[in-house]
Amino acid sequence: MEYIFSDAFQRLKPSAIREIFKSLTDPTIISFAAGNPAPESFPVDELAKLSADIFKNSSTAALQYSITEGYPAFREAIAARQKAKFGIGTDKDMTMVVSGGNQGIDLCCRVLCNPGDAVICENPTFIGALNSFRACGAKTVGVDMDEDGMIPEKLEETIKNTKNAKLLYLIPTFQNPRGSTTSLARRRALYEIAKKHGIIILEDNPYGELRFRGEEIPTIKSMDDAGIVVYCSSFSKILSAGMRIGFIIAPEAIVQKMAVGKQCEDVHSNIFFQLLCYKYMTECDLDGHIEKIRAIYRRKCDLMLECLDREMPKEITYTRPDGGLFIWCTLPEGYDSAAFAKFAIAKKVAVVPGATFNCDTEAPSNAFRLNYSTPSDEQIVTGIKTLGEIACEYLSKE
Amino acid sequence: MEYIFSDAFQRLKPSAIREIFKSLTDPTIISFAAGNPAPESFPVDELAKLSADIFKNSSTAALQYSITEGYPAFREAIAARQKAKFGIGTDKDMTMVVSGGNQGIDLCCRVLCNPGDAVICENPTFIGALNSFRACGAKTVGVDMDEDGMIPEKLEETIKNTKNAKLLYLIPTFQNPRGSTTSLARRRALYEIAKKHGIIILEDNPYGELRFRGEEIPTIKSMDDAGIVVYCSSFSKILSAGMRIGFIIAPEAIVQKMAVGKQCEDVHSNIFFQLLCYKYMTECDLDGHIEKIRAIYRRKCDLMLECLDREMPKEITYTRPDGGLFIWCTLPEGYDSAAFAKFAIAKKVAVVPGATFNCDTEAPSNAFRLNYSTPSDEQIVTGIKTLGEIACEYLSKE
Repeated sequence: MEYIFSDAFQRLKPSAIREIFKSLTDPTIISFAAGNPAPESFPVDELAKLSADIFKNSSTAALQYSITEGYPAFREAIAARQKAKFGIGTDKDMTMVVSGGNQGIDLCCRVLCNPGDAVICENPTFIGALNSFRACGAKTVGVDMDEDGMIPEKLEETIKNTKNAKLLYLIPTFQNPRGSTTSLARRRALYEIAKKHGIIILEDNPYGELRFRGEEIPTIKSMDDAGIVVYCSSFSKILSAGMRIGFIIAPEAIVQKMAVGKQCEDVHSNIFFQLLCYKYMTECDLDGHIEKIRAIYRRKCDLMLECLDREMPKEITYTRPDGGLFIWCTLPEGYDSAAFAKFAIAKKVAVVPGATFNCDTEAPSNAFRLNYSTPSDEQIVTGIKTLGEIACEYLSKE
Repeated sequence: MEYIFSDAFQRLKPSAIREIFKSLTDPTIISFAAGNPAPESFPVDELAKLSADIFKNSSTAALQYSITEGYPAFREAIAARQKAKFGIGTDKDMTMVVSGGNQGIDLCCRVLCNPGDAVICENPTFIGALNSFRACGAKTVGVDMDEDGMIPEKLEETIKNTKNAKLLYLIPTFQNPRGSTTSLARRRALYEIAKKHGIIILEDNPYGELRFRGEEIPTIKSMDDAGIVVYCSSFSKILSAGMRIGFIIAPEAIVQKMAVGKQCEDVHSNIFFQLLCYKYMTECDLDGHIEKIRAIYRRKCDLMLECLDREMPKEITYTRPDGGLFIWCTLPEGYDSAAFAKFAIAKKVAVVPGATFNCDTEAPSNAFRLNYSTPSDEQIVTGIKTLGEIACEYLSKE
């Protein structure tokens, strides 16, 4: 039988990263392609202890159906922490637990966009978000960035030329894939433009707590007096990615619709791990734990930068991130990073070519993304050495 | 700011059951309204022990990102068990882990239906599925049932009169809300009709393992030589509902599209609990555990039937289920169960009025759903006594 899929899914292709991820079952490949947290960042012993407590004292609550919006005390703890630390949330906002940040993105688009509506994104941007938007039948429209983030004039222009722009998707802090951070002035400018045009901002902030250098910059959500920002974050990068626990903070009317959508998707997030996160937040030292993760990533990032400085030909440039998980490398103009990535994988090193993150073009990219959180120190040293050799060969050849 | 939602979500209302569920935080209410497994059906001690093992021996795998389709050994164990016990799955099928059965339903509709397409359902049917279909912008079209399940002639007629019917949604075993089971002859007839018209069947079977009386009837999926059945089930009713672990078995091409959709929704299901289920399946006695659950539900069902026999006026009829979680009660014709449910909640007993499960009408229903798995024995006795008193009063009044 030939199956006829919905228009949106007919067009959707499996994410290139997901395919790369699958190929990584080959243990001889050094992967700079993933975006996984470092395994040493999981507080295993404490989670094991708290789990045993839950089985002993709250097993029914932890194994039974629960409410869609999330475990109430956990939601309160999240809201209180976000308010105290980042000034996020007003009395018109509501907090909902989601099954990882991607679900927040997916639900936000599902409740706001009809097929054919447009989502305006930083170009390049997170492939998982792009696929969620496309799965809703939405059009993804890219706006150019520079080292300070999305360019406001280009956003104005894009809004003018785009029919039914409903959503502005931004990763202002340690952006994926570029690793760069939008400046405060830019955040304010982008917010004002969205407000003026009645466009909802979806602020995705999975990496915000992973700053290991420089000054904290306020989130866009913390400026949201008009109630136009859906803020989305998660525990994936600070406790465990595999548990699939994230949260959104957004105007109540939007969260209520997203809750209806979440009921359709999975009824509620794994309640055992909601309890576990809640206990971790209230009985352990989450902020102290995050400090440890920051130290790990500072070290790993510096090691990778050191190796790049040593191994890479001068024509290749790269960002020097203040946090997050990624370094963005750029080959000289005219070179295609997809070809470079093919050379690399043949030498057992995986990187993600920049075109993977394109919003709305098939254009080749001369940039590629490197991840430093997942590989071991040894893999970073060996892998970047190999990449350097490939780069020298590749640049001399063309 | 006034928010403008997508057309599908503009129309969607929170499920009535969900609202009832929320009101149930009032501990003085006896609830026959939920569909929760009995808390005593959770194998807490074994899960606690296996969890400790996972933290000790596989913590990185259990806390790190994983692949969308699910933990490979777990998928194999599911496929092998379904094949061996129920004859489900061919070499053209593929098994994928989902975050509870509802996600399987949601993804199936998302990949197959465009807004405006029709999903044909038993009327009445599971409200969670109806909402998933509506969230995709699909039209839900009900077909009448009798005690043997959906009526084939009515299905033929409905298909003839329905534009773009893409999906036939069936809960053949211990249907929600009616508790009734589709006969083998009917299963064959419905399958042949779907095949003839090129319509995919979504067979939802969350309760199939909860048979405590009578003969097993083969699933529709077990007859699927044409590759037209998406089979959806879960561990919610046999291990834990709160963990949100289910599975689908369906033709590979469909599962691959659903995997792309799942990546948008939550990337993958909680991997710790996938490992936990896998260990339970391979290191503990799942079938023996299911026998214990069946015994619990047989007892609870019989107790509720006994109470109904004793307390209810003769004009009220009800099903005598062979398994599952629900009894379907019918008031005399002309009575409205919504009014009855209001009387009941005023006396602190919650039931779900039948109209909640309507596919495509606003018509009142004279039936209501009772659940016997969640309440304690004492609550069943007291609650049904109260319902009997209300019923006597209500019937004499009108």
